[in-house]
Amino acid sequence: MNVLLVYAHPEPRSLNGSLRDYTVRHLREAGHAVQVSDLYAMKWKAEVDAGDNTASEPGARFHPSEDSRIAFQRGTQSADIAREQDKLRWADAVILQFPLWWFSMPAIMKGWVDRVYAYGFAYGVGEHSDMHWGDRYGEGTLAGKRAMLVVSAGGWAPHYGPRGVNGLIDHLLFPIQHGVLFYPGFDVLPPHVIYRTGKIGEGNYAEVRDALGRRLDTLFTAAPIPFRKQNGGDYSIPDLTLKPGLAPDATGLDVHLAGH
Amino acid sequence: MNVLLVYAHPEPRSLNGSLRDYTVRHLREAGHAVQVSDLYAMKWKAEVDAGDNTASEPGARFHPSEDSRIAFQRGTQSADIAREQDKLRWADAVILQFPLWWFSMPAIMKGWVDRVYAYGFAYGVGEHSDMHWGDRYGEGTLAGKRAMLVVSAGGWAPHYGPRGVNGLIDHLLFPIQHGVLFYPGFDVLPPHVIYRTGKIGEGNYAEVRDALGRRLDTLFTAAPIPFRKQNGGDYSIPDLTLKPGLAPDATGLDVHLAGH
Repeated sequence: MNVLLVYAHPEPRSLNGSLRDYTVRHLREAGHAVQVSDLYAMKWKAEVDAGDNTASEPGARFHPSEDSRIAFQRGTQSADIAREQDKLRWADAVILQFPLWWFSMPAIMKGWVDRVYAYGFAYGVGEHSDMHWGDRYGEGTLAGKRAMLVVSAGGWAPHYGPRGVNGLIDHLLFPIQHGVLFYPGFDVLPPHVIYRTGKIGEGNYAEVRDALGRRLDTLFTAAPIPFRKQNGGDYSIPDLTLKPGLAPDATGLDVHLAGH
Repeated sequence: MNVLLVYAHPEPRSLNGSLRDYTVRHLREAGHAVQVSDLYAMKWKAEVDAGDNTASEPGARFHPSEDSRIAFQRGTQSADIAREQDKLRWADAVILQFPLWWFSMPAIMKGWVDRVYAYGFAYGVGEHSDMHWGDRYGEGTLAGKRAMLVVSAGGWAPHYGPRGVNGLIDHLLFPIQHGVLFYPGFDVLPPHVIYRTGKIGEGNYAEVRDALGRRLDTLFTAAPIPFRKQNGGDYSIPDLTLKPGLAPDATGLDVHLAGH
């Protein structure tokens, strides 16, 4: 299968750098084809701006989503954006690997999302009317592909537990897992989170590496997070709220999981 | 009072640009001093890298948090970072204004957080031991100051409601409001969210503007979100989990609100 690893860490000689190299090696040894988008090495441009449409008129008012739509439709997107979209089309699975900075991804990776996720590619796909609010949340361009986060964090696992001070990791990652990955169609696997990175050294690196390896081994077989599909009948249209009777006892972000 | 507006939109002739100008004018008319960090206009660098420490040695291994600590302590931070920290020290209230892109802030603003929030300034503050896990979540360098998000979104308000398909807006913003703002000490006001931005034009702009104005009028009097303080007795140390008996009926991110 084809795997795209989107990776953001500024220092190759870091824990993340080692795990990136291991991931590529491990997946290739298992027979997969791997491409890496190493955003720092690529000097990825993080800022959405008028230059993302190579045919934008100087001085014209820039409208991020409308300009994105036009550039995607007419084939005038900046080449770096189009290349990443091609990699996403090629991939059967996508891994986003990053250190958790301020409870989200580093800016350079957010800029990859902001720019690569064009109108017509990642959103604005399918019929948009009062009857059908687009092909999204379980449908869309990237449907049928799998995605997984590999995240490193300095804090302890209990700090990210159901009652941990930082907030539950699944909820902190919801804007990414549900909003960035499930939205354009990915089946999203549970995240692989590596805690207490400051305590990882020669004595326990092999253990950390092998735990990641086991997750990579089930990249194409593990059960995805059961996010509810927008157009699967669970949500009213056009207000897009969960129908009464579903998840009667759940509150918060977990209402969007089937079975709650 | 002193207000810092951190603003991220690539087009000055946008709804966000108009509301930024209005905010500055409205606050000054009320007698406040205002500074604006217009990140696109400043060509803010979004990527954390070794250059953020002007005294970093070429070829040395870069460690984001350790290098940040050293540069902050020795006064060798990049000038753009130090300037923003000075603005934060000066401010009595900070407003972050941005369009919601993929359920979070634009990359350029995430890069403002990643770079300005240095070790020793926004984290790594106070005693760190098994008895006291730093001055954070309600304590820290920015304690006593207020912060508020002003966010624009294309979708409808019900889509961001308690059972809306996107997830509740308060939960989507939790990594920012709790993890970025409350963490270094800010009192965080409820966000001001402007929905259905595509439907705002000459006919209803005044209404949208005035609603924001009313929020600005209570910037220094409105009640903050009652996030629990880490060191206020609600959390066990060092596992930093909410003590048994607190929030017995709540689940999810709301357990971190006092009164639940």
